[in-house]
Amino acid sequence: MSPVYVADLTESELVARIQSHLPPPPAWLSVGIGDDAAVVEPARNRLEVLSVDALVEGVHFDRRFTPAGAIGHRALAVNLSDLAAMGAEPRLALLSLVLPADLAIRDFDAMIEGLAKLAVQERLHVVGGNLTQSPGPLVVDITVSGTVKRRQALSRRGARPGDLVFLSGSIGAAAAGLQMLKAGGVSRETCTGRYLFPDARVRLGVLAARNRAASSCIDLSDGLADGVQRLAAASGVGIRIDAAALPIEPDARRWFESKGDDAILEAVDSGDDYELLFTVRPQRVGRMRTALKQLGDVIVTEVGVCTSAKEVVLDRAGELCPMSLGYKHFG
Amino acid sequence: MSPVYVADLTESELVARIQSHLPPPPAWLSVGIGDDAAVVEPARNRLEVLSVDALVEGVHFDRRFTPAGAIGHRALAVNLSDLAAMGAEPRLALLSLVLPADLAIRDFDAMIEGLAKLAVQERLHVVGGNLTQSPGPLVVDITVSGTVKRRQALSRRGARPGDLVFLSGSIGAAAAGLQMLKAGGVSRETCTGRYLFPDARVRLGVLAARNRAASSCIDLSDGLADGVQRLAAASGVGIRIDAAALPIEPDARRWFESKGDDAILEAVDSGDDYELLFTVRPQRVGRMRTALKQLGDVIVTEVGVCTSAKEVVLDRAGELCPMSLGYKHFG
Repeated sequence: MSPVYVADLTESELVARIQSHLPPPPAWLSVGIGDDAAVVEPARNRLEVLSVDALVEGVHFDRRFTPAGAIGHRALAVNLSDLAAMGAEPRLALLSLVLPADLAIRDFDAMIEGLAKLAVQERLHVVGGNLTQSPGPLVVDITVSGTVKRRQALSRRGARPGDLVFLSGSIGAAAAGLQMLKAGGVSRETCTGRYLFPDARVRLGVLAARNRAASSCIDLSDGLADGVQRLAAASGVGIRIDAAALPIEPDARRWFESKGDDAILEAVDSGDDYELLFTVRPQRVGRMRTALKQLGDVIVTEVGVCTSAKEVVLDRAGELCPMSLGYKHFG
Repeated sequence: MSPVYVADLTESELVARIQSHLPPPPAWLSVGIGDDAAVVEPARNRLEVLSVDALVEGVHFDRRFTPAGAIGHRALAVNLSDLAAMGAEPRLALLSLVLPADLAIRDFDAMIEGLAKLAVQERLHVVGGNLTQSPGPLVVDITVSGTVKRRQALSRRGARPGDLVFLSGSIGAAAAGLQMLKAGGVSRETCTGRYLFPDARVRLGVLAARNRAASSCIDLSDGLADGVQRLAAASGVGIRIDAAALPIEPDARRWFESKGDDAILEAVDSGDDYELLFTVRPQRVGRMRTALKQLGDVIVTEVGVCTSAKEVVLDRAGELCPMSLGYKHFG
């Protein structure tokens, strides 16, 4: 039996396949999928947090070693991570899918299933979207909206000299996982799983905002070095990161070292981990630790301190090295 | 001097170029471009209307005869048209741009300028977005949000047998304009201008919603036949369109006829006009006409009636022909 491709179906049929993966519409959704736009009742007494992010085939994923379910999961997770960085609770998403004609309908379904599963888990509802064919690569563009109480939204701008710097989970795993998938040999699920199905730290972000424990926050989509540079620039502070304190995923460390690389420099520059980096005023660290105990499931590590020096440095056993610049040319 | 391409700049530099085209942020925007997400104060006592639409190079436009400014304008206009169809006032937009490395920075700027000019005109603010490089075609994906009072949102679902069917402006011009641009010979600005710089009927949509004059509404992105079919299906009615009443743009009619085509069938099937098609209960037609006088600038024509027959037909001097099906295969 020859495979069926998205080009063999009508737009309405594809939309129906998406809807079959979605739970019943919530009460706040007046008009959902199937009209010119979605109509939504805003959440009471809360600010709205909006973000958009696209995954592009050949740039952000390779269909040869990224299962379709992982593409859907990742496309939503990177957006959830942006909401987490602002301390927002996820609410709704719009999907804009740019589909090559030769995308198998089996892969289309698996991609939607991966996305819908994560959406249900994070209590986010898909309220609308757009499908278009493309002569080029698969593009999964998602807009998400979440909510946060007034004066509780986190941003990159609130850090002050003296604030301590914390990092959730571990770094390096996703980049090592991607390298393993590309190499095609033996791989470690701790790393490949992290690349293919990243966790967004939604509960941590919401908690850090609700307790006013964090003074600033950013998610590490492009790696620790990039995130630290951006947060420091937005807040107008310097940051000193203690290399020895960095929670590098052990399997990733072994992978980097097996290739003869400096594991710390590799981990610091590697993206796709989607951990949260946030700062806390010294007098609020106790409150933060209490809050983290409520959360339970995610380890948070103190990795540095904000300074008035306006420089971002990596402290390697007392030797201060300039942190690599996350900013790269666009092309 | 060799041209500069987007690949020669950093993401931050491209974002700064976008910001240079935008007006100062409105008071309701707590956090704008430059953080992980935008933070917005919802509009008081209004529902939120959300839509997303993508323009893909090679599918929706051809860079050889579509100036960059028109790409930006059209990408926003198609989204504004969705808001108009719901009766919503535009409020904000998020831009997700998927950029080929060989896009000249001059074209990038012109595209943003075309988009920003329309945004200012329609009082819509760009609050955030995402830039990504691509090995494929240029994709301009825009999410818009607007607002509408409770119980005033229009949808495709409210038409009843007996309701009269109205159409704004004229049809056929955009499709004829696109054919002229492709042919490359003599063209008429009434048609090419309509294709390149479509008007979204925002004021008309808002007015039709505010006066509760319209019982249902849809925008004609894929042509009259497609729109009528969708509205009829969503409302569970039939629709009879009077071919003689259809306001076909005269230059488009001449163009279609010069090629030996049936101008009515061409106009009915041609997309990209972004007119509004809406239905009005017979007893509310007077109220509708009064409201339209306030608006002034857009002609609205009665083109048909909703029936209980569940069929969509084109009445050509008494001969009833089935309306062509808008639904096409996706590929």
